Amino acid sequence: MLLYVRKDHVVINCYRTVFDLLSIRVFMGEFSFIKWIRKREKRRKDVILGIGDDCAAINVSSDKLCLITTDMLVDGIHFDLKKCTIRDVGRKAVACSISDVAAMGCQATVAVISICFPEHTAEKFARELYEGIWSISDEYNIEIVGGDIISGRSRLCINVTMLGRDEGLKPIRRSGAKGGDVILVTGTLGGSLLGKHLHFEPRLKEGLLLNKHFKIHAMIDISDGLTADLNHILEESSVGAILYEDQIPISGAAVKLSKKTGKTPLYHALSDGEDYELLMTLSKGQANKVLNSVLFEKGMIGRIGEIANGSGIQMMFSNGNIRRIKPHGYEHLKS
Amino acid sequence: MLLYVRKDHVVINCYRTVFDLLSIRVFMGEFSFIKWIRKREKRRKDVILGIGDDCAAINVSSDKLCLITTDMLVDGIHFDLKKCTIRDVGRKAVACSISDVAAMGCQATVAVISICFPEHTAEKFARELYEGIWSISDEYNIEIVGGDIISGRSRLCINVTMLGRDEGLKPIRRSGAKGGDVILVTGTLGGSLLGKHLHFEPRLKEGLLLNKHFKIHAMIDISDGLTADLNHILEESSVGAILYEDQIPISGAAVKLSKKTGKTPLYHALSDGEDYELLMTLSKGQANKVLNSVLFEKGMIGRIGEIANGSGIQMMFSNGNIRRIKPHGYEHLKS
Repeated sequence: MLLYVRKDHVVINCYRTVFDLLSIRVFMGEFSFIKWIRKREKRRKDVILGIGDDCAAINVSSDKLCLITTDMLVDGIHFDLKKCTIRDVGRKAVACSISDVAAMGCQATVAVISICFPEHTAEKFARELYEGIWSISDEYNIEIVGGDIISGRSRLCINVTMLGRDEGLKPIRRSGAKGGDVILVTGTLGGSLLGKHLHFEPRLKEGLLLNKHFKIHAMIDISDGLTADLNHILEESSVGAILYEDQIPISGAAVKLSKKTGKTPLYHALSDGEDYELLMTLSKGQANKVLNSVLFEKGMIGRIGEIANGSGIQMMFSNGNIRRIKPHGYEHLKS
Repeated sequence: MLLYVRKDHVVINCYRTVFDLLSIRVFMGEFSFIKWIRKREKRRKDVILGIGDDCAAINVSSDKLCLITTDMLVDGIHFDLKKCTIRDVGRKAVACSISDVAAMGCQATVAVISICFPEHTAEKFARELYEGIWSISDEYNIEIVGGDIISGRSRLCINVTMLGRDEGLKPIRRSGAKGGDVILVTGTLGGSLLGKHLHFEPRLKEGLLLNKHFKIHAMIDISDGLTADLNHILEESSVGAILYEDQIPISGAAVKLSKKTGKTPLYHALSDGEDYELLMTLSKGQANKVLNSVLFEKGMIGRIGEIANGSGIQMMFSNGNIRRIKPHGYEHLKS
């Protein structure tokens, strides 16, 4: 969750007809809308974290925080029922919200789900959506405690709001990255469109372990794409970053997809969305502890770059050249 | 919030073309879908109240409950942008959720809001929606702590999830009505379509006062209509009710609307939705205390009937006749 336009790369790359980038630019006026919203002053003392992170955090007793995140998924924007089952959609809707709690290094607990079914929806279809919702909520011990179900002349629309607990830990923000930090990422990246965007396992356990055993300065889940989400950390922290070309963990799916798209596997790893891996920054010492920890499978977390003073993202190519790159649009990426 | 189909009477009565009652019946198979969902066993010990009330309640520390409710509003179903401003819609979306917290006798605190804007939405329009959201959230000291904003080829859709606090009180459920209870209601009823459905003040203060100073057995806010929402209390409490025809507080709007529709003002008071008044049951002694309390303006709360053993709703007409009535469909209502 973040109060801003989701520029879902899976959508942008592949369903361009249903999600018009131009319309966002026109509507959003270079994100001035979101800046305008964020200008509002905080009013309540019990709001510990408001807009700008994967979850907000509310003080619910002297020593307990309640995390909250909300995400809306609409047919034709976030999923395409011609290419997946309704059960997949139910699972994904819940998984995205779990991933937001994971990105704060906290524990997901309960959710409420609103659904607008297109009219004349068959009950069997509605039940299958719930089977998908329950398949993952059971797996992560999350209870669906309520919701709102409506029906009308509209596309299928699902909104999940998830609550979490701090478990005695401090939620990890996007804004804590410091110059000299190491950038780590879980898993491999790119090509989620070939299946992972529907079937990913949110890194809930990993987020909690990282928060409990290490000092993570900043963290986010990769929903918009590696460079786009890294850029969120950089902007919130007022720092820049250098990525190492030869350290980006390119997935098999990115390689496979690149053969269809004609783009490089690196392009897909850097800019595809919806891998829902965790991207974090921390001191060199802490990073080494994470990389050598027995808490994680070998190779499950890797170093991909460093935080630098300044702003924006630079890429250190394998030939040693360093070039500034933009968070989006790697069509012409050359070293 | 309740996990079931909202049969919004404003919609049913007036926008029949956009919200097809038949489609709900077909889809829902006589509400078997909701029964099917509710059959799922509770899994978590910290879930104090799950599906079936206006809010769920989660135990967030040894002595604190977090209330949660969610509501989705879609253009053409819950509002008609041809007949109201976008600012009205923003206000209403938040007000409906506040009313859900009020119905539990608790305090509303923060909310997250997801919005899907139709593509090519102007930023001015989006800002006006937020002005409506803030106008009421400021009034009730509620902070909007986050959200999700998307844009695509879809109708305008807004989902509000609101959190609340128990304030050391026990949340009032729908399931506590007892035979012999008196039924009270706040305000006057019917004809909300003429304006109140957009501009109502949720009874947050009244709900808290009622919960703090009196022993309320069951409470609900009137969103679906007096008899429909009374029926929710009756079903959850396994009891019946008798309403007194001459005690139903008919609003001026109901009288006005009846001249347009040809239906009686009583019909509108019984079956129109979206008055967002509080409907409650409590013992005779407690009811007398409420009716004589200086906490409420004179005439702001009135007695409209009593809880009886059995099931369903009966009406005691002014001529003394008692007849069973259905929660919906008063076209042929005669004494």
